[in-house]
Amino acid sequence: MSWELLISPEEVDKANQELLQTAEKVGADTWQQRVANQTPHCGFGESGTCCRICSMGPCRISKKAPRGICGCDIHGIVARNYLRFTAGGSATHSDHGRSIAHTLYNASPDGNYKVTDSEKLLRIAKEWGIETENKDIYDVAHEVALVGLNEYGKPFGNLLFTQRAPKARQAIWESQDILPRAIDREVSQAMHMTHMGCSSDPEALVRQSLRAGLSDGWGGSMMGTEFSDILFGTPRPIDTEANIGVLEEDMVNIIVHGHDPSLSEMIVFYANDPEMIAYAKEQGAKGINIAGVCCTSNEVAMRHGIPMAGNFLAQENVVLTGACEAIVVDVQCIFPALGPLSKCFHTKFITTSPIARIPDSDFIEFKEDTAAENAKAIVKMAIENFKNRKPELVHIPKQKSKATVGYSVEAIKKCLDGVTNSHVDELGTMKPLVDAVKSGVIRGAVAMVGCNNPKVRQDVYHIELMKKLLENDILVVVTGCSAQAAAKVGLMDKEAAKYCGEGLKRVCRLVGIPPVLHMGSCVDISRMMVLASDIAKDWGIEISEIPLVGCAPEWMSEKAVSIGNYVVATGIDTFLGVDPYTKGSEQVKGFLQSGLKRWVGANFIVNQDLDMLSTMMIEHIEEKREALGI
Amino acid sequence: MSWELLISPEEVDKANQELLQTAEKVGADTWQQRVANQTPHCGFGESGTCCRICSMGPCRISKKAPRGICGCDIHGIVARNYLRFTAGGSATHSDHGRSIAHTLYNASPDGNYKVTDSEKLLRIAKEWGIETENKDIYDVAHEVALVGLNEYGKPFGNLLFTQRAPKARQAIWESQDILPRAIDREVSQAMHMTHMGCSSDPEALVRQSLRAGLSDGWGGSMMGTEFSDILFGTPRPIDTEANIGVLEEDMVNIIVHGHDPSLSEMIVFYANDPEMIAYAKEQGAKGINIAGVCCTSNEVAMRHGIPMAGNFLAQENVVLTGACEAIVVDVQCIFPALGPLSKCFHTKFITTSPIARIPDSDFIEFKEDTAAENAKAIVKMAIENFKNRKPELVHIPKQKSKATVGYSVEAIKKCLDGVTNSHVDELGTMKPLVDAVKSGVIRGAVAMVGCNNPKVRQDVYHIELMKKLLENDILVVVTGCSAQAAAKVGLMDKEAAKYCGEGLKRVCRLVGIPPVLHMGSCVDISRMMVLASDIAKDWGIEISEIPLVGCAPEWMSEKAVSIGNYVVATGIDTFLGVDPYTKGSEQVKGFLQSGLKRWVGANFIVNQDLDMLSTMMIEHIEEKREALGI
Repeated sequence: MSWELLISPEEVDKANQELLQTAEKVGADTWQQRVANQTPHCGFGESGTCCRICSMGPCRISKKAPRGICGCDIHGIVARNYLRFTAGGSATHSDHGRSIAHTLYNASPDGNYKVTDSEKLLRIAKEWGIETENKDIYDVAHEVALVGLNEYGKPFGNLLFTQRAPKARQAIWESQDILPRAIDREVSQAMHMTHMGCSSDPEALVRQSLRAGLSDGWGGSMMGTEFSDILFGTPRPIDTEANIGVLEEDMVNIIVHGHDPSLSEMIVFYANDPEMIAYAKEQGAKGINIAGVCCTSNEVAMRHGIPMAGNFLAQENVVLTGACEAIVVDVQCIFPALGPLSKCFHTKFITTSPIARIPDSDFIEFKEDTAAENAKAIVKMAIENFKNRKPELVHIPKQKSKATVGYSVEAIKKCLDGVTNSHVDELGTMKPLVDAVKSGVIRGAVAMVGCNNPKVRQDVYHIELMKKLLENDILVVVTGCSAQAAAKVGLMDKEAAKYCGEGLKRVCRLVGIPPVLHMGSCVDISRMMVLASDIAKDWGIEISEIPLVGCAPEWMSEKAVSIGNYVVATGIDTFLGVDPYTKGSEQVKGFLQSGLKRWVGANFIVNQDLDMLSTMMIEHIEEKREALGI
Repeated sequence: MSWELLISPEEVDKANQELLQTAEKVGADTWQQRVANQTPHCGFGESGTCCRICSMGPCRISKKAPRGICGCDIHGIVARNYLRFTAGGSATHSDHGRSIAHTLYNASPDGNYKVTDSEKLLRIAKEWGIETENKDIYDVAHEVALVGLNEYGKPFGNLLFTQRAPKARQAIWESQDILPRAIDREVSQAMHMTHMGCSSDPEALVRQSLRAGLSDGWGGSMMGTEFSDILFGTPRPIDTEANIGVLEEDMVNIIVHGHDPSLSEMIVFYANDPEMIAYAKEQGAKGINIAGVCCTSNEVAMRHGIPMAGNFLAQENVVLTGACEAIVVDVQCIFPALGPLSKCFHTKFITTSPIARIPDSDFIEFKEDTAAENAKAIVKMAIENFKNRKPELVHIPKQKSKATVGYSVEAIKKCLDGVTNSHVDELGTMKPLVDAVKSGVIRGAVAMVGCNNPKVRQDVYHIELMKKLLENDILVVVTGCSAQAAAKVGLMDKEAAKYCGEGLKRVCRLVGIPPVLHMGSCVDISRMMVLASDIAKDWGIEISEIPLVGCAPEWMSEKAVSIGNYVVATGIDTFLGVDPYTKGSEQVKGFLQSGLKRWVGANFIVNQDLDMLSTMMIEHIEEKREALGI
């Protein structure tokens, strides 16, 4: 099959090379150079066999030294590191959720933040047993936010959102002793268990990794997703464009980068303010162009159609175009390199969060009660910076692709309603999709997620895997940097249906969707969990029986490992292209890549070979089908 | 001056050598051997310049590679590692406090756990604004416990115990933006800030270290201390013995090791049960002998006079005597090495907490509602193990010293009341001590705390520093392994007053105290914070003006770094004998060892030279005196 309409890896490489030439011209440091400097990596660190948890060490496990000074063996050390890695990710995602919950708590009809999706708000209030009758919608919002905030630290009970999972899955969590309690408590317990002289039993440490992960996916992340929808609207399909070519040479280019939509929503709003646009024109630009990087890009693309400039490893590229007036960031996945890099150009690097203080940036603290004035100040700063461009450094590679994004669970159900016989069938269910899978028109689905990582060729793993899956009639749902990888080359263009196998092609055209469905940012992997739960419920099977697997071929961050833990704990086999620093311990590898199956019905598969990854995923899906007798 | 009555380092070495001979005989691995195996340590790890926070790395900073792949520089990497180290400690101490709060919440007049110090309970209830009039004491207990549990995760406001500090200190915390919010939130935020792509600004990271530390010292740890007192009694002076010679050759020796008194209190109770003693006799022993190791030892010594077998680096020694029937542990500072080591002897290594699962142990989960039966089962297991001793391996070095322990703040005030003219002066204040310091009879005080660390000669730093301070009329208050180091050699014997300078000697004899005051376990450093606050209030000066310094010459764990952060943030200069993996960054060192003075009026001093440490501490105290004009 030919994929001629997509942007090819070679074309991407060419564009990157052009930007690297600019970097060379200005003497800027780039990740490509830093990867070369940092190679080879420390073998102890990479295999997880180095321990720095107390100051008697650091200790490294080797033949000469089979145990650390405290007596901890290789399995304990690798497992502790793995749990801490998970805890870092869980804390991070969940703190993002907490921030959104605080924003919801402060929402008011005449404030900076308002309730947009009151239907979802009322649905969650009902789910949580909050009385809504005859109540002002903002009172409901504040009550829901308060219950949400207490999910972080309530002394008793388990997380409310876990009750969304099918009963059978909840029973597994309960029996395996991994049903999460308060979100922050699981993080703190993970830190406590891994403290010097606490747990060194890999089984106990891996079990807590699952629980800390679940407190993210069915706790903090899910709150981040749901409360963002309440505040900013639940995504529905919307057209946009993606890739570096979305930057405009004659406009003020403002890049929003990071994760929390509380910032980016405000920037988008004020960049569309006629007063600001007029000011931009006054300063010699044709207008203001906002584009996104990383998960922030997903947030504003799916709610406003804001174009996507790139994903994680493209963040330096936007500055290297020489046409970026400001790169405005909040939290997570922001290269500290943007500090010195922006100094080589006219670009303003604007940090806004006390959580992410970065040297060589302009810090404008973004607060709920001053969000409007903060956003205006930032937009103004960018506009006024337009005149400082160095024309000789401006080069924007022309690559861009069309994309349709914004497939929340609600949006997917709405699409499926369109192919339902409304006289006969129930609306708002996953049944049409289930039927398509049962019949074999679609063989199954893969949830592709996660970051970029220089350890694999940027975006190529994401894209090549997707292509292979689509050809095999496997639907692909995506979030995060994986989503942007797809969008950038054209896989989210509805036209891309033509590359699919016959069954999937037919479904895409009938339902009117692209073959790669954009479900949002990384916290929105919680949407995938709800999707899987709803499929299981509507199908009448357990989640682990669905012909569905997860895949993070280019993952990089602790958040990704937290995600992996909750996806697997939810019953979905998960394929990784990068090892989570566990190869030093046969026991830990044994649990993660096999033993977990007995606990939760799914496990990790780690493989760096692109062909093997796709082959194994397809086999897994076919095996699930066989087990179901379909 | 001669210290002839103390056990000398040479005598200690001799006893250790005897035990190591037994280790050699049975082919056991010991920490001394593992230290040799692990030496030299990784230079990157030791200087804090290695980063494993995402899977693009690990990255190591060198001339060739001045930045990590994300672009983070050496200062960001060292500071992130430092904050995570602090967060590990804060989470660990605080989780201990949470466990005690749960025990208090479940206390009942006919249950396993009862209210012992109702006066303290009522005092805290009043402090927290809880109505107590006409209420059952257990209802008050449950309300206080619930408020305490909510301190871990309340969505708004700051920690209640911080209001105990002098107003001026609270104002510093507020103005420096380090006043802690919910305890777990500070841990989670620390993890979030240090996540890939968040903070790399060392100032912000060090500031959060202080806040996370404060949430331990004026939060979780203080709750651990206060609620333990409510449940098990506020310590008052009590005589005991210390050192390995407290093990009894003809008795069933049960060692309690770890931290949480909920376990050890029950073991002590059932070891004194006539039925159990009769059973021990039936099995051929003369009775049951309980002795402690690490902080658990401090807990049961100060409340019941249970002898102290040793501190952190002595934990293998108790097994090496061949006369240890059971070593029963809960959480923290437990060598995983005890697993294989106990297998070389008849010793039962009994783990009891889901937080600390250790291979090669017998796991008997210790739960609040089954605590009595769990404790009985453990004591019985030990008794039945007496017959399995291998007589040829039994050797208990004869060293032991007398000690008087249990100087809680309340007990110190009571001692001071004894030298107060009750007709003229107010009782229950620190004024007599303040007067002694003002007059120069006592020059000041040092809070000696923390662990053992093979990087310095075991106990010798603790003891030699104490001797020097006492000679110079400086009162020493101690907790944790530092306390046991002092007790083991005889420095907590009231007779040791004779080694002090003339002024301190006179005070000790007049008040009837040893010159080294045992204030408890490591969580009880919170007692030292209250002591410092009360001195400042009664003196009418700020805490940082008191001629008082902190010192952790042999610290080892993350908890110790969390402690260091809150002690410094409380305004007390703190001397460390081991570097907290920060020497790679001049900026981080600059903040910790100097810049903090501008923020909070105190900083760290890191020095490995024993003589310089004592000289600098004495100088610091004299400088404070001079500044006060005394």
